[in-house]
Amino acid sequence: MDGGTSFFGELLGSIAERGRALLDLGRERRSTGEARTASVAELCERLLSGQGEASGVALAQEILAAYAGLRSGERIAFFETLAQDFGPDAARLDKALAAYAAHPGARSVAEIHFASEPRRQELIRRFNLAPGATARLVAMRADLLGFLRRRPDLAEVDRDFVHLFASWFNRGFLVLRRIDWSTPANVLEKIIRYEAVHEIRDWNDLRARVDSPDRRCYAFFHPALVDEPLIFVEVALTRETPSAIAPILDTARTPLAPETARTAVFYSISNCQTGLGGVSFGNFLIKQVVAEISREFPNLKEFVTLSPVPGFRAWVEAQLADPASTVLTAEQRTALAGIEGTQAPEAAAREALRPVIETLAAHYFLIARSPKGKPVDPVARFHLGNGARLERLNPFGDLSARGMAQSYGLMVNYRYIAEDIEKNHEAFFDRGTIVASPQVRKLARAEETPKPPALREVAG
Amino acid sequence: MDGGTSFFGELLGSIAERGRALLDLGRERRSTGEARTASVAELCERLLSGQGEASGVALAQEILAAYAGLRSGERIAFFETLAQDFGPDAARLDKALAAYAAHPGARSVAEIHFASEPRRQELIRRFNLAPGATARLVAMRADLLGFLRRRPDLAEVDRDFVHLFASWFNRGFLVLRRIDWSTPANVLEKIIRYEAVHEIRDWNDLRARVDSPDRRCYAFFHPALVDEPLIFVEVALTRETPSAIAPILDTARTPLAPETARTAVFYSISNCQTGLGGVSFGNFLIKQVVAEISREFPNLKEFVTLSPVPGFRAWVEAQLADPASTVLTAEQRTALAGIEGTQAPEAAAREALRPVIETLAAHYFLIARSPKGKPVDPVARFHLGNGARLERLNPFGDLSARGMAQSYGLMVNYRYIAEDIEKNHEAFFDRGTIVASPQVRKLARAEETPKPPALREVAG
Amino acid sequence: MDGGTSFFGELLGSIAERGRALLDLGRERRSTGEARTASVAELCERLLSGQGEASGVALAQEILAAYAGLRSGERIAFFETLAQDFGPDAARLDKALAAYAAHPGARSVAEIHFASEPRRQELIRRFNLAPGATARLVAMRADLLGFLRRRPDLAEVDRDFVHLFASWFNRGFLVLRRIDWSTPANVLEKIIRYEAVHEIRDWNDLRARVDSPDRRCYAFFHPALVDEPLIFVEVALTRETPSAIAPILDTARTPLAPETARTAVFYSISNCQTGLGGVSFGNFLIKQVVAEISREFPNLKEFVTLSPVPGFRAWVEAQLADPASTVLTAEQRTALAGIEGTQAPEAAAREALRPVIETLAAHYFLIARSPKGKPVDPVARFHLGNGARLERLNPFGDLSARGMAQSYGLMVNYRYIAEDIEKNHEAFFDRGTIVASPQVRKLARAEETPKPPALREVAG
Amino acid sequence: MDGGTSFFGELLGSIAERGRALLDLGRERRSTGEARTASVAELCERLLSGQGEASGVALAQEILAAYAGLRSGERIAFFETLAQDFGPDAARLDKALAAYAAHPGARSVAEIHFASEPRRQELIRRFNLAPGATARLVAMRADLLGFLRRRPDLAEVDRDFVHLFASWFNRGFLVLRRIDWSTPANVLEKIIRYEAVHEIRDWNDLRARVDSPDRRCYAFFHPALVDEPLIFVEVALTRETPSAIAPILDTARTPLAPETARTAVFYSISNCQTGLGGVSFGNFLIKQVVAEISREFPNLKEFVTLSPVPGFRAWVEAQLADPASTVLTAEQRTALAGIEGTQAPEAAAREALRPVIETLAAHYFLIARSPKGKPVDPVARFHLGNGARLERLNPFGDLSARGMAQSYGLMVNYRYIAEDIEKNHEAFFDRGTIVASPQVRKLARAEETPKPPALREVAG
Repeated sequence: MDGGTSFFGELLGSIAERGRALLDLGRERRSTGEARTASVAELCERLLSGQGEASGVALAQEILAAYAGLRSGERIAFFETLAQDFGPDAARLDKALAAYAAHPGARSVAEIHFASEPRRQELIRRFNLAPGATARLVAMRADLLGFLRRRPDLAEVDRDFVHLFASWFNRGFLVLRRIDWSTPANVLEKIIRYEAVHEIRDWNDLRARVDSPDRRCYAFFHPALVDEPLIFVEVALTRETPSAIAPILDTARTPLAPETARTAVFYSISNCQTGLGGVSFGNFLIKQVVAEISREFPNLKEFVTLSPVPGFRAWVEAQLADPASTVLTAEQRTALAGIEGTQAPEAAAREALRPVIETLAAHYFLIARSPKGKPVDPVARFHLGNGARLERLNPFGDLSARGMAQSYGLMVNYRYIAEDIEKNHEAFFDRGTIVASPQVRKLARAEETPKPPALREVAG
Repeated sequence: MDGGTSFFGELLGSIAERGRALLDLGRERRSTGEARTASVAELCERLLSGQGEASGVALAQEILAAYAGLRSGERIAFFETLAQDFGPDAARLDKALAAYAAHPGARSVAEIHFASEPRRQELIRRFNLAPGATARLVAMRADLLGFLRRRPDLAEVDRDFVHLFASWFNRGFLVLRRIDWSTPANVLEKIIRYEAVHEIRDWNDLRARVDSPDRRCYAFFHPALVDEPLIFVEVALTRETPSAIAPILDTARTPLAPETARTAVFYSISNCQTGLGGVSFGNFLIKQVVAEISREFPNLKEFVTLSPVPGFRAWVEAQLADPASTVLTAEQRTALAGIEGTQAPEAAAREALRPVIETLAAHYFLIARSPKGKPVDPVARFHLGNGARLERLNPFGDLSARGMAQSYGLMVNYRYIAEDIEKNHEAFFDRGTIVASPQVRKLARAEETPKPPALREVAG
Repeated sequence: MDGGTSFFGELLGSIAERGRALLDLGRERRSTGEARTASVAELCERLLSGQGEASGVALAQEILAAYAGLRSGERIAFFETLAQDFGPDAARLDKALAAYAAHPGARSVAEIHFASEPRRQELIRRFNLAPGATARLVAMRADLLGFLRRRPDLAEVDRDFVHLFASWFNRGFLVLRRIDWSTPANVLEKIIRYEAVHEIRDWNDLRARVDSPDRRCYAFFHPALVDEPLIFVEVALTRETPSAIAPILDTARTPLAPETARTAVFYSISNCQTGLGGVSFGNFLIKQVVAEISREFPNLKEFVTLSPVPGFRAWVEAQLADPASTVLTAEQRTALAGIEGTQAPEAAAREALRPVIETLAAHYFLIARSPKGKPVDPVARFHLGNGARLERLNPFGDLSARGMAQSYGLMVNYRYIAEDIEKNHEAFFDRGTIVASPQVRKLARAEETPKPPALREVAG
Repeated sequence: MDGGTSFFGELLGSIAERGRALLDLGRERRSTGEARTASVAELCERLLSGQGEASGVALAQEILAAYAGLRSGERIAFFETLAQDFGPDAARLDKALAAYAAHPGARSVAEIHFASEPRRQELIRRFNLAPGATARLVAMRADLLGFLRRRPDLAEVDRDFVHLFASWFNRGFLVLRRIDWSTPANVLEKIIRYEAVHEIRDWNDLRARVDSPDRRCYAFFHPALVDEPLIFVEVALTRETPSAIAPILDTARTPLAPETARTAVFYSISNCQTGLGGVSFGNFLIKQVVAEISREFPNLKEFVTLSPVPGFRAWVEAQLADPASTVLTAEQRTALAGIEGTQAPEAAAREALRPVIETLAAHYFLIARSPKGKPVDPVARFHLGNGARLERLNPFGDLSARGMAQSYGLMVNYRYIAEDIEKNHEAFFDRGTIVASPQVRKLARAEETPKPPALREVAG
């Protein structure tokens, strides 16, 4: 019911006409990129003004259409304008700061907050008046993220996008939907496209992941982004905690009768929307899916991940390259030297390497820290931060070139135990503790002599 | 798919247990209102802390359930806590102000904005993690509005609710749905209950308004508030601009073949959610419905309202009571003295009173101003602010007791003309102009000698 | 997607034009009823012919529209035509009979079957080609049923309708839907209208029956009759088997927490479509709803009805009027003489009458038989035929005027016990046994001396 | 809401138990195929008996489950039983025949019809009581069709299935749905699998056919067969009537802006359900889709097919093999001898062969007849019978091996012209006329000297 009509057509016509008059935009001027950006900026000013209220939907539509027509450089110019011209109302802010200085208090501090709000926040809210605007705004921010590396001066604009998106995409507005073989093809196609961890090769591979009795896939959706998954997770139902990814991805395997499964394995979590980077859903998704699957299969006892370790090999290679590093023994150095590129070693060689990888991995997870004092591994930061514990190290769990390149093939399991989640999370954030299973801690203990002061661990 | 489960049950169990331990909340202490509010406040602190991230959904659920169990005084105490203890982080704000003073710039001003954000904003966002939270938060704010008159110190809390709701209930997230006889009964029942202008007496009366070929009803819904209309409008399709409400509400009338209608009459607009007061939808609803109906009936030429004039009689009576007022002539005073209470005058008396009412109404709309320089009438402010023009005055258009009490029975038509909406809106906001049709302006001119300086009008 | 279009418009135009040419239907002839019916008959012949296949949808549409325009007498004429002109193809039947006489066998007997099929069966199937035809055909048969009393010669036509409807409305095509407060108003309105046992007074009464935690309502729908319930049942969840209807219908009662209920009471079953009379759904509905409710409330132990006894008073009065009847004792005759019209007796009088009613009711159910040897009571025939047993007699269970008129206020419970249904049903159909609970059988035994040969009973 | 429950479980348990008792089916006897079939037959008898009414749903479920467990030979035995033991009730039929002989009339002839109905018809109707039965019955008939070639004695059973399916799958119960990229994958997968004319190679090929702006796909569905298309048609929107299939199937082509199309081309129609063979939907589907597309694109002027000619090459080869055939000239024989197997000739050779193919094709369509006097080609019989006309011959329109094997690559266009459909259809069925465009008739005339008596043609 929200499509365009001649009523909005006329309204838009009158806006455009008045726009040209007000803004004195002659044809020749419009033909240059600078003029185009300028004109979009002027439309933005009008959208923010009182006028914007009367014809906001139409104005927002026009601006988003204009933005879509801009070339890359013009888009950067558009974001520059947002940064420079749509910051806070300076006069109002000065007044608010003065009032606060004179009479500090709840009212004057609140006024500081509202006065210091960049005008672009309200502008972005008004962009969202147009039909279909939310998807376009998410795409707009994806553009911005692309520019951000070379243009750190646009970071404040990005911060405002993130602030708004965090509010709009609040978990309370998300809808969990199961993805299966009766899901529309246009959604499934996006699952194929967005799978970021273990590539889905084709529709048969997809089907094996969503349409087997022992597989499940769930995604979060937002009502304003129809048919666009935000994030999805792939789950395998198994008897045991798995130690390798290949058997799980094997399309020729015999499916397990799901009611006989003991374990639910989260073996892939992928974000779908670049433009929503920094807005976190994964934590909620995992917990919601645990709840969902528990209800369907009351016999499940364990909820674990089978996760990649994307920073491991780089970290080991940094130790190798650093003659001062005491992490590696000479034997370990020799052993690792036998690994050629991203070629998976033979079975025999793997057995020999296994203890080397395990020892190093225990150090990597439990002892090594980023400059900010966090675990080095980003996936570890995610799951440990969610309250999971590090359950098991699986050397050569992923023999693909990618797995070898990231982590010499190492995979790990994180485990979610309902009654420990809060405690683990708190230990991680308050005291930097890495909660690990006894078997992992034992590996670390074997390795460390003496125990470095940074290591703080608890029983999981 | 978002119901509770034993997984969340256990998570919640562990939260509650740890909560009792951490907070040392013995049974006896819990039994007093003060303690209950305190405990809710403590849960709020935890929800905002890092811990809250791991178990946010469960914590938010617990807090909302706890709030639901509070009595009135305890709820006030809860809002006091939000006001006093969940303002901005003072230390961070001081630091931000100092940094800005030292180095004013985009970054430091942005930091002021985020540092001055009251912590309750994030808190309310996290409340929304719980399933069904949005409806509960809207109800929570309805409570707050009820307390606000006696407790103006809570106004800052309310301002934060409004700020968040304006973002969450952005028009881009609203869905327009037609209300008709195939609408679920639980929604229709709310239409009956929320109709604020012309009471719907029973289901037959409702049916006459939503299920006649020459009647339409539309409402805005939000995806997070299932089956809860936010605002709805009732529309009659007629040949001419109507001058009285009774024929429109007459359930025994013969319906018009809608394709022969020339005019769409918006005869009732009702907000449904007290808790969303101050978040404006009406402007968008009217324009969207005009678009919708135009598409269905391309023959429609005119879009008008038939509106009450809620401030008119009070304004006239203030003039009557003020011996210094020059607005009323002696004849007018005499004529009005004949009206008894809310009893509608006889037909003959009405004819005699008609020019008196018209003259005074023209003054009321075009000349009288509130202390802030706005039109006195709230309905006028709404439609004129939307870009409509004042089209016609209809003395005795509503002979009900309510109509007589509000306006001596006066109703008016506002008219929405697509190509004038922007211009009218701008004239109203920029120059305070009341755009009126020639016939209304003529009535005002006849009346005024000499023209007061406040009157600024243009041709509609 | 099934609406009309200009393609079908043109096709229809060409049909109509050619129709007029072929059939030589001048304007003047069309103006009489006879001609109109004739013309419909001619269109029917064309629909049945090879031509009909090419343009069947359009032709069927035209015929149904024409039928809708016929007056009552013309409709009778239309059915006469179906009876007389659209019987079996006589030549084909003669040939088939001769072939069968010569060579009796599977093939020749099958040919008799197909040759003896009245042509109107295929005609009605082709009527159904038109969009929305099924509802119109059900209405057409409702017309036919109305005519049937005075026109028994149309019975064969009716038999063909029933035959087709039994196939089309096969239980396999029906969909069970719960009726509750989120059901569209146009469906709920039909529930109010079609309730045939205990009138629903208004929307509040309806709501008490479908929107209380201890009430359920379910209906069967057919995909081709959108928003048209075929039959529905109202269920109360109670602690005990109820003995009176008033407490169940009481809108002011306090609802029971449904999970504490032991008993599901089917207190009203209503058919909605006159035109589907003779096509039986009730049996399936009850069993499906038992299954549905058992799943929702596993604690339920008993599934009973609270049913009217519509033939009881008439049967008693026939005994009273028959001086030869030995069913009634003199005391019983005297006691019954105290009942005045449809006025419910006072409490004291009721107590005195109770054993009289019980004794007579036991005789009525267990001993009395219709000329065909079936139970006299139609409701008894339905439930006993479904495999229920007669559980309890409730004198004065319905003190309304209607209840008094039908049965001196008597109501009964029939009980559905899953493991006995087949056995009971079989006993009823094979041996005419009325399965009753021990307490009912005891009442009958007390009464009968000596046991008449017709009484065959088993333990339920 | 129609799944199984413990209520039906118990009912079924009681049925099975009583079944074993009644039927004396010991374990050892059950172990042989004969016994299994016998036991199914006994269950069928019970389902037909009065008992079946009480527990029909459960009995039907048991029978269908038992059938699913039968092996091929046992299934044949099951159909033999249906043929031999579930024919008409012989006694009732004899009585009816006698009554008819004594008093022929509407009533007695109707009784013949109902008495001669094979009991298996009602049996199949009762099978359909079980949840999901319709799909199983369609599969059952697919089995039967497979057996029919070797077991022509089962033809009467098949005739009864067809009779019932024609009633159940009446066009009035079918739902037209567009197939596009938002269709669930399980439906799309069936489109890939069932495409019978021009194979869909993979999901990309599928997408090109359903998700291009100038392509459409529509299917009929039946409410009782969820997610199972019955028949579908693929449509291309083009500027001109196409003469070859390759450009239409080309996934790399540039799509046409659909509003600029003049022609809708039905280039593939596929039935999906073997078990519904002989129940015709294609005629309705084409006309409904023409209506649908016309509404979407009012600019379309022409509705044509691009159809294969599956009988052409076999017919030509029969002429070649028959020395007495006068259809072929010596030159034509020589030309055709140059075609090697299913290898498409080179472009130059094709030009030389074109007039040969055209002349023979004109003869094939317009003059040649099957023994029953119909066109030889089955696709021609379908479209001409629907009222289309033969529009154009396209030699080498399909150069695939399949196209060469069927028709030396010949394809044809049939054209649907709304105002001629009835007339064409009638001419075809009443007088055997092949309606063809002037250009096709001209080719035939050139060829024939003198005109054979069988040729009857009219201007299309």
